[in-house]
Amino acid sequence: MTTPDSFQTWSSAHQARFENVLRRLLPQPDIAPQRLHDAMRYSVLDGGKRVRPLLAFAAGELVGADIARVDIAATAVELIHAYSLVHDDMPCMDNDVLRRGRPTCHVEYDEATALLVGDSLQSLAFQLLAEHTLNNDAALQLDMVKLLASASGSRGMAGGQAIDLDSVGKQLSLPELEFMHIHKTGALIRAAVLLGAQCGSDKGRGVALDEAQLGRLHHFGKCAGLAFQVVDDVLDSEADTATLGKTAGKDAKQDKPTYVTLLGVQAAKKMAAELHRDALDALSGFGAGARRLRELADFIVLRKF
Amino acid sequence: MTTPDSFQTWSSAHQARFENVLRRLLPQPDIAPQRLHDAMRYSVLDGGKRVRPLLAFAAGELVGADIARVDIAATAVELIHAYSLVHDDMPCMDNDVLRRGRPTCHVEYDEATALLVGDSLQSLAFQLLAEHTLNNDAALQLDMVKLLASASGSRGMAGGQAIDLDSVGKQLSLPELEFMHIHKTGALIRAAVLLGAQCGSDKGRGVALDEAQLGRLHHFGKCAGLAFQVVDDVLDSEADTATLGKTAGKDAKQDKPTYVTLLGVQAAKKMAAELHRDALDALSGFGAGARRLRELADFIVLRKF
Repeated sequence: MTTPDSFQTWSSAHQARFENVLRRLLPQPDIAPQRLHDAMRYSVLDGGKRVRPLLAFAAGELVGADIARVDIAATAVELIHAYSLVHDDMPCMDNDVLRRGRPTCHVEYDEATALLVGDSLQSLAFQLLAEHTLNNDAALQLDMVKLLASASGSRGMAGGQAIDLDSVGKQLSLPELEFMHIHKTGALIRAAVLLGAQCGSDKGRGVALDEAQLGRLHHFGKCAGLAFQVVDDVLDSEADTATLGKTAGKDAKQDKPTYVTLLGVQAAKKMAAELHRDALDALSGFGAGARRLRELADFIVLRKF
Repeated sequence: MTTPDSFQTWSSAHQARFENVLRRLLPQPDIAPQRLHDAMRYSVLDGGKRVRPLLAFAAGELVGADIARVDIAATAVELIHAYSLVHDDMPCMDNDVLRRGRPTCHVEYDEATALLVGDSLQSLAFQLLAEHTLNNDAALQLDMVKLLASASGSRGMAGGQAIDLDSVGKQLSLPELEFMHIHKTGALIRAAVLLGAQCGSDKGRGVALDEAQLGRLHHFGKCAGLAFQVVDDVLDSEADTATLGKTAGKDAKQDKPTYVTLLGVQAAKKMAAELHRDALDALSGFGAGARRLRELADFIVLRKF
């Protein structure tokens, strides 16, 4: 329902506002090197559900964080996500031509440019996290840089992609598949939640979370991230390319293990429902402030695209 | 001359010690994902002149910085450099098969792994800069993260590579070629000098540099970086592949503009000598503490490989 207070209204307003934040923070297209900057904007703007930024905004609301600070943290996470898609789509990885209903970066530009776009988006993410004040305590802000870096690297997202590459044609066990996705998708989703919350943990500003509360947010992020992937696999097996805006049925065709190929559709859906419940349980102590996080958990599991 | 105090002794000792630092700070090869970690180590260890780390150590000596801190800063810069080489060698960029006398990463492993190696090395650089204490003032350390990120991104190294790509087959002017190299090679060399110096700028520890002194180090880094590239072009036109440890004469063959193709060998050598003098001039106010920086300027211009 689209009431002034509904999730639909909240998420649409944040998505629209965040698009302008991205337009402002990405290098302007008239600055040299123009083709690279143009390709960076092409790869980030006007696309995607912005699930990670929305999670950061929802976590920021939980702690009463300054939204201008969360904008920066959300942008950093989204730039890491966007760079991973650009590199993932390249011929040496998934070799995909369609993303968010448009030609992928290396198709629209060229492979070398796509490589540099991804590299530059990653650098920009860390530049933004370092050059804006996100927390009155600079040492805590350094922790935020460390969090995003470790979520992105060889023991986070990029490591998950490496495991994914190695898994083609193999029969993975459920724990192995889970290990892969906790890295490939989960690490960055968890980072989005925690970075949003860490913008608000200043003394004297907003609500400071204690270790136990951060631990519960961590668990929420883990469950939500895994649920996101399970639902992705279900949608990928059921939807068509037009609805997804990306190539459907790709993983099964590439002989990659998915929750659907491993468990079947029904058991995968049951797993998503269990992760959904676990995610909501993790938020149970937070009260009304966690409303948008709860709604995002609902959205992640119930979405149709 | 190899006396106990000579540049040769100093640089060899730092190179050997730094190799162990890298071995310790890179992900261990027995940690999952093992193939990725193995490829990261292959791409960084046992290779290169470590010019950027040596510049960081020399700048650290100038300010009396704790060498354990400079080790981290030097590693971060070297990881950014190493990632750029891995991506640069890929088929969609320079398509090179030889680097530091060994098969390039995508030849030894595969293209997808090389892509992820570069991505992961970049993440690791920022993780290291954020997770170790490099300066007692955390806000100054955030400035160091920002410095490395902007030196790496679309308005630094990666931007210079994009301009390089666009320049193939074009007749560049000398200012255009300089603009490209100030980004492609210069930004990271300058960052190495400044990051080394910033490890020592704590109150009460070492010598704090004032704005004017940092400005002179900045200028030193710019001149040294440009000199490095001019000498690279001269060596590339004169040396053979065995001496260089990488494919010689590549730029000219790829119809890329170089200082040698633009100016001729003699004028390029003259330009290197002028940049050498400018670099030394920038250090004139620093006294004996800048000895190793001076020697590195000499090495950069007089090296034969």
